[in-house]
Amino acid sequence: MRQDKEETSVNLSRRLLLTVAGAGGAGLALGALGHSAYAGQVSEPAPSDQIPFYGEHQAGIITESQDRMHIAAFDLQTEDRQELIELLHEWTQAISEMTQGQEIGEGGALAGSYDAPPTDTGEALGLPASRLTVTIGFGRSLFLDGETPRFGLAGKLPEALIELPHFRGDMIEAQRSYGDIIVQACADDPQVAVHAIRNLARLAFGTANVRWSQIGFGRTSKTTAQQSTPRNLFGFKDGTENIVAEDSKALEQNVWATKESTDQSWMVGGSYLVARRIRMHIETWDRSTLGEQENVVGRIKGSGAPLSGGEEFTAPDFAMPGRGGPIIPKDSHVAVVHPSAHGGARMLRRGFNYTDGSDGLGRLDAGLFFIAFVNDARTHFVPIQRAMSANDAMNEYLRHTSSGLYAVPPGISEGQYLGQQLFESA
Amino acid sequence: MRQDKEETSVNLSRRLLLTVAGAGGAGLALGALGHSAYAGQVSEPAPSDQIPFYGEHQAGIITESQDRMHIAAFDLQTEDRQELIELLHEWTQAISEMTQGQEIGEGGALAGSYDAPPTDTGEALGLPASRLTVTIGFGRSLFLDGETPRFGLAGKLPEALIELPHFRGDMIEAQRSYGDIIVQACADDPQVAVHAIRNLARLAFGTANVRWSQIGFGRTSKTTAQQSTPRNLFGFKDGTENIVAEDSKALEQNVWATKESTDQSWMVGGSYLVARRIRMHIETWDRSTLGEQENVVGRIKGSGAPLSGGEEFTAPDFAMPGRGGPIIPKDSHVAVVHPSAHGGARMLRRGFNYTDGSDGLGRLDAGLFFIAFVNDARTHFVPIQRAMSANDAMNEYLRHTSSGLYAVPPGISEGQYLGQQLFESA
Repeated sequence: MRQDKEETSVNLSRRLLLTVAGAGGAGLALGALGHSAYAGQVSEPAPSDQIPFYGEHQAGIITESQDRMHIAAFDLQTEDRQELIELLHEWTQAISEMTQGQEIGEGGALAGSYDAPPTDTGEALGLPASRLTVTIGFGRSLFLDGETPRFGLAGKLPEALIELPHFRGDMIEAQRSYGDIIVQACADDPQVAVHAIRNLARLAFGTANVRWSQIGFGRTSKTTAQQSTPRNLFGFKDGTENIVAEDSKALEQNVWATKESTDQSWMVGGSYLVARRIRMHIETWDRSTLGEQENVVGRIKGSGAPLSGGEEFTAPDFAMPGRGGPIIPKDSHVAVVHPSAHGGARMLRRGFNYTDGSDGLGRLDAGLFFIAFVNDARTHFVPIQRAMSANDAMNEYLRHTSSGLYAVPPGISEGQYLGQQLFESA
Repeated sequence: MRQDKEETSVNLSRRLLLTVAGAGGAGLALGALGHSAYAGQVSEPAPSDQIPFYGEHQAGIITESQDRMHIAAFDLQTEDRQELIELLHEWTQAISEMTQGQEIGEGGALAGSYDAPPTDTGEALGLPASRLTVTIGFGRSLFLDGETPRFGLAGKLPEALIELPHFRGDMIEAQRSYGDIIVQACADDPQVAVHAIRNLARLAFGTANVRWSQIGFGRTSKTTAQQSTPRNLFGFKDGTENIVAEDSKALEQNVWATKESTDQSWMVGGSYLVARRIRMHIETWDRSTLGEQENVVGRIKGSGAPLSGGEEFTAPDFAMPGRGGPIIPKDSHVAVVHPSAHGGARMLRRGFNYTDGSDGLGRLDAGLFFIAFVNDARTHFVPIQRAMSANDAMNEYLRHTSSGLYAVPPGISEGQYLGQQLFESA
């Protein structure tokens, strides 16, 4: 059946696939099921609904950010290198199918036999690809258990894959942090992103367990020239100075690992993903004045313009005098983290807002799930986070509750598996 | 400024409002901010993007279900009747504004003065109304503290607002259950739904605290004739037999409280909201065969047709013989809960899928946040849930972790406040 599908309908959407399977699926008592059961219920996805999976870099980094995210970290339950490679093979195949809007495996959710579980869990049947991207990365713990190499990866740990230090004020919860492998699924439909993580978790059964996972519901960064800057849960535009996909030079200097910037050849074309769950004390924030809020951020709430004037994309003038000091306060967020204060280092931010119910004290548990891609966290994240934790007026309203750093291998071409460069590099 | 806004721009979207406020807001150093900062970034909402707030019934019950939900229960921190009424007044005003895509209060997120917190938290600035509906209901604990009436509501407790019984297998967590007031916010954009709950929580500060809240990301029921039936996290179509908005007769018989069906005149035109957080053991489900899954549900996974044949909306034939019994097993979900087994009683279901990260045991914490509207839980929910908890083969894959029942007062007209009928009834 898989062969049939591949020969006749490589790019069929889940909806068409369902109809084909219904009409021809062996052993299914579908009876009178015909096209009429589906016709006209879901509009055919445009080609723009699919993000190519294969390429020089993994998708989901410079892809225009989708609206929803489900990200999960996995811990390996095996120490067998071959089992790990086999898992990466299976994930690669499944991701390739799902990003085309297909069910995974032979028969998908409508498996060919009553005697086996379906190969797909089915909750995305009838939904378009929804610009799904799935991006994977490797945590330091995949390479080392203490000082002992794992999976025959001695000598393959990139120097840049450090243990992130403790920052002032950090309240890191280990059960929300770290992990051997990170899997970031982004899509415009949350059910599609959840379906992806769930099915990858299912394929991993017996080999790797979900360590933590997080749902994000609103992107927080402008990631392409055309995308408008969204607002975070402080109500401010977030990501005005983000690196956009069109800025190849900034990507080369700040995001992609290159022959020059990495000590590990397998990382060339890859990047590093920094994940931080940042709870916002929104009740406190909401009781602060507009003046306080704008002084904390260093920008106008409405327009996003710096307090030194202009419009959103006007460069801040940190020297412009105000009452009793610069008009953009020295401890404002924009002053503390601005690239001009960090040797020009910039990040590609790609975070999401989150709300995880309430905290038992009558407050919403909400904030920013910060995600950034950089070519070296030692130069592009740690100093900036250190400055922020020491000096940023925004700290009063934030609490970092998770932390993670992952080496994101480069993209692959058809026939390869995700991470192959790591396992086959000299 | 509020007066200006009301006189000149009653139906302005948040985007336009932002521009107007930017151009004319007193005391804001917006400088060169003009239309260009926003032009073309967000498309103008169509009128269909706004759901009318005023009406015979509250919106969010027979409204075609939106894609996302944020629902929260509040506990009053006061015993003062007047404070409670004042809160309902403020909420009514805010809901009326937000459902029109406006910020709440004078000045919204761009308050008129630097010396006060903005009256709106701002994260929905620039977003359209997104079909936002906000629906409120009253828990039994609003009327009674033990046997003692609260808020002067002696004699106003509807008989139908019972304490839901314990059902076999229930593992109810009190901190996710009950509450004095329920607020259900639904929208096609989760940031709009979250913004609504957050701003209502903010208005309640000092008067009522959030007891629990839940995010749902995928609707699970067909609620209008034109809407297709979505899939739950079991991968099955859910809500095939749901009451749809067009079926006035079924609504009259099953959903709306009427003079005949209620002992409380203030409830006429209202309904009862049942909320149950139902965790699905999806890992176990995913390892069961397609045959087992279809026997548990009593329907074909692909089409949603009953196992007795036909298409999704074909009536099940519970007498049709199969191997060793009816072809639709007696303990299948459809056989156990079907209206024909419960004197014709039906619910209007309006639930959402949820995924709340993972559970520390390597499993996703995911399932169905069940919401149903009925005119009497004693006849339209309790017997069905009792039968399900006793006989339904699906129980093996479910765990009910929360419970709540709320009296949803009727809709209001302009000038009234939500719940006014309760406080002013004889």
